[in-house]
Amino acid sequence: MTQASVAGVALTQFGSHPDRPGRDLFGEAAEVALADAGVPRADVDTLKYGNFMGAIAERQSHQAPLMAEAAGLTCPATRYEDACASAGVALREAVLAVSNGRADVIVAGGMEHMSSLDTAAVTEGLAMAADELHEIRAGMTFPGAYALMARAYFETHGGERRDLAAIASKNHENALDNEYAQFHRRVSVDEALEAPPIAEPLHLYDACPITDGASAVVFVSESYAESHDVTAPVVVSGSGQGGDRMALADREYLARTPAADAAAAEAYADADISAAAVDVAEVHDCFTIAEVLATESLGLFDPGEGIDAARRGVTTADGQMPVNLSGGLKAKGHPVGATGGSQVVEMTRLLRGDHPHSDAVSDATVGVTHNAGGSVASAVVHVLEVAQ
Amino acid sequence: MTQASVAGVALTQFGSHPDRPGRDLFGEAAEVALADAGVPRADVDTLKYGNFMGAIAERQSHQAPLMAEAAGLTCPATRYEDACASAGVALREAVLAVSNGRADVIVAGGMEHMSSLDTAAVTEGLAMAADELHEIRAGMTFPGAYALMARAYFETHGGERRDLAAIASKNHENALDNEYAQFHRRVSVDEALEAPPIAEPLHLYDACPITDGASAVVFVSESYAESHDVTAPVVVSGSGQGGDRMALADREYLARTPAADAAAAEAYADADISAAAVDVAEVHDCFTIAEVLATESLGLFDPGEGIDAARRGVTTADGQMPVNLSGGLKAKGHPVGATGGSQVVEMTRLLRGDHPHSDAVSDATVGVTHNAGGSVASAVVHVLEVAQ
Repeated sequence: MTQASVAGVALTQFGSHPDRPGRDLFGEAAEVALADAGVPRADVDTLKYGNFMGAIAERQSHQAPLMAEAAGLTCPATRYEDACASAGVALREAVLAVSNGRADVIVAGGMEHMSSLDTAAVTEGLAMAADELHEIRAGMTFPGAYALMARAYFETHGGERRDLAAIASKNHENALDNEYAQFHRRVSVDEALEAPPIAEPLHLYDACPITDGASAVVFVSESYAESHDVTAPVVVSGSGQGGDRMALADREYLARTPAADAAAAEAYADADISAAAVDVAEVHDCFTIAEVLATESLGLFDPGEGIDAARRGVTTADGQMPVNLSGGLKAKGHPVGATGGSQVVEMTRLLRGDHPHSDAVSDATVGVTHNAGGSVASAVVHVLEVAQ
Repeated sequence: MTQASVAGVALTQFGSHPDRPGRDLFGEAAEVALADAGVPRADVDTLKYGNFMGAIAERQSHQAPLMAEAAGLTCPATRYEDACASAGVALREAVLAVSNGRADVIVAGGMEHMSSLDTAAVTEGLAMAADELHEIRAGMTFPGAYALMARAYFETHGGERRDLAAIASKNHENALDNEYAQFHRRVSVDEALEAPPIAEPLHLYDACPITDGASAVVFVSESYAESHDVTAPVVVSGSGQGGDRMALADREYLARTPAADAAAAEAYADADISAAAVDVAEVHDCFTIAEVLATESLGLFDPGEGIDAARRGVTTADGQMPVNLSGGLKAKGHPVGATGGSQVVEMTRLLRGDHPHSDAVSDATVGVTHNAGGSVASAVVHVLEVAQ
């Protein structure tokens, strides 16, 4: 079995692009990724594309062939949708298709255009990632769901709002030099603590923003890279996916995300490594508490110790286990259907040395990405390694 | 490389289920398919699920984990969306995952709930499968798109409304004994000719109806079937997918569907057969003209001869090449995200001998299914064979 190598990566500027249709954003990302890879469009076997809310944001479903066209591709194209894990799933299927020898070159990624809706409509749209019958009709929102998870975590393991504020502050700090990030602004722990509440114990800076943006990754087989003289210094050595009950009420325990546990276990087994081998992580911090839960699911910290690690600065750029050097969903932004791809873009740059934070992880050889859908009813984990 | 065997299949009643949420429909189909397969839920590795318009129909995205739950499954779950080819793509990815040795048991299928919207909203929803910027804003509808294709076909190859009416009448005839079909009513050629126009040359009976329904297929690896004493008399020997420009205006020629040509070529190569080996077909007749185009893309008839075959009765149950013995989308119904799965369900029953029309194809060993998205910007073809 061959491995899927990352030959090229790209992001658009994350932020607000009200005047550009989504196809322009993805077309740009795909073009830059293909140029980064040095791979001609004619060699692309298929497009695997993630999008979440295009049906309401741009009244456009069936986006995959449209995005292939925007990218100048004539290959078959498939859209994947697992809420905020849509691009994670698309990339996973690309990785599997290449490693199974079914394809030599795949463009994978995603796009979300959210500024086309007003904030209330975005909140309603995001709610479609939860259980409409049993959660949304009862008044659940995503800030509410993650607030419940934060409360359960605090009750079981301790922790307080200040610890979560430290995560927000760290991620804003990390985004300062990331040219693609939505925010380039320091947020102090005190500023985060003083921000208005959105769902206690979560306040404004515990939540990620509303973002337009696209991500694209060009995967190639090892044999294609060799025969076409394509440089691919990073490989995806492991991929895993997990699932869980949709509604929080149907779960046994809210201070843990079993779907991500399962995804991480599968990805590590696939890569034949343990969590101890991981040097750096990009995780799905749609809310600050989600970063804590993610680092525990990835096995970077024991259950209940993620909050302590955040408090002690273990996950900062200078810490022992840097998390979300990109700025994370919190400060880089969260174009829902693009996020899982953007994490692999950032991790590739970190490992190959052309990320603003590469110096902080100059010895790193193994990175993981963690992408979650809904209140982690879906999760995808990838292991990336510097090619031997 | 192993083959994906079809161990179990199921459909819900196609029609109108305004009082049942979509999850109930898919849960029922999955339960019956698993019982048909005799496979325990715990053995299912993953769910691959197609849905098109759930975001507007039931305000529910992220349906995959919800459907896993409805099916009593705890495995990872992914939603695929390529418009009307959504389930076709989901099944294709299931077939590839099993044949690549990545999974032993996969449940694949799809669901659409359309009666939750009024007819105008359904028409608007379906329009999201075309190019919103360049077609829908200009007034395009799907009946309009297929009317343009029909006109182009008539101009190039001849043919008239009566030939299309013969297809509608045939498919209604075929559905009479199909207990899952939406319509059990004869429609004569004259009745079809006299129906009101929807977009000339297409009249009411040239179009498929609005349908609620679900389909489910249980695929198993050959080794799993052997070691678990699972009966799987039909295998998927070939799978192919093609893509095309989204907007009709960007295509060179409207009387041909190159995405389906490509899908068929790939599927036949995968199965190591030619079109001459095919005994029976289930094709995507969202409009009667689409059936003609499909049979030509599948190579069952030469370009321009599909209409003549329809006129001469070659594709009837008694004909040389029966097409849509199920009743097709026309009379069985078209729950968009379920249709690609339902075709494989019908073909499996035809080949294994428990379909009302199995007698008409008692010597058949090779069947093809053809599922198309939008105005065939996406297409998926599968080859099914009686296991050796």
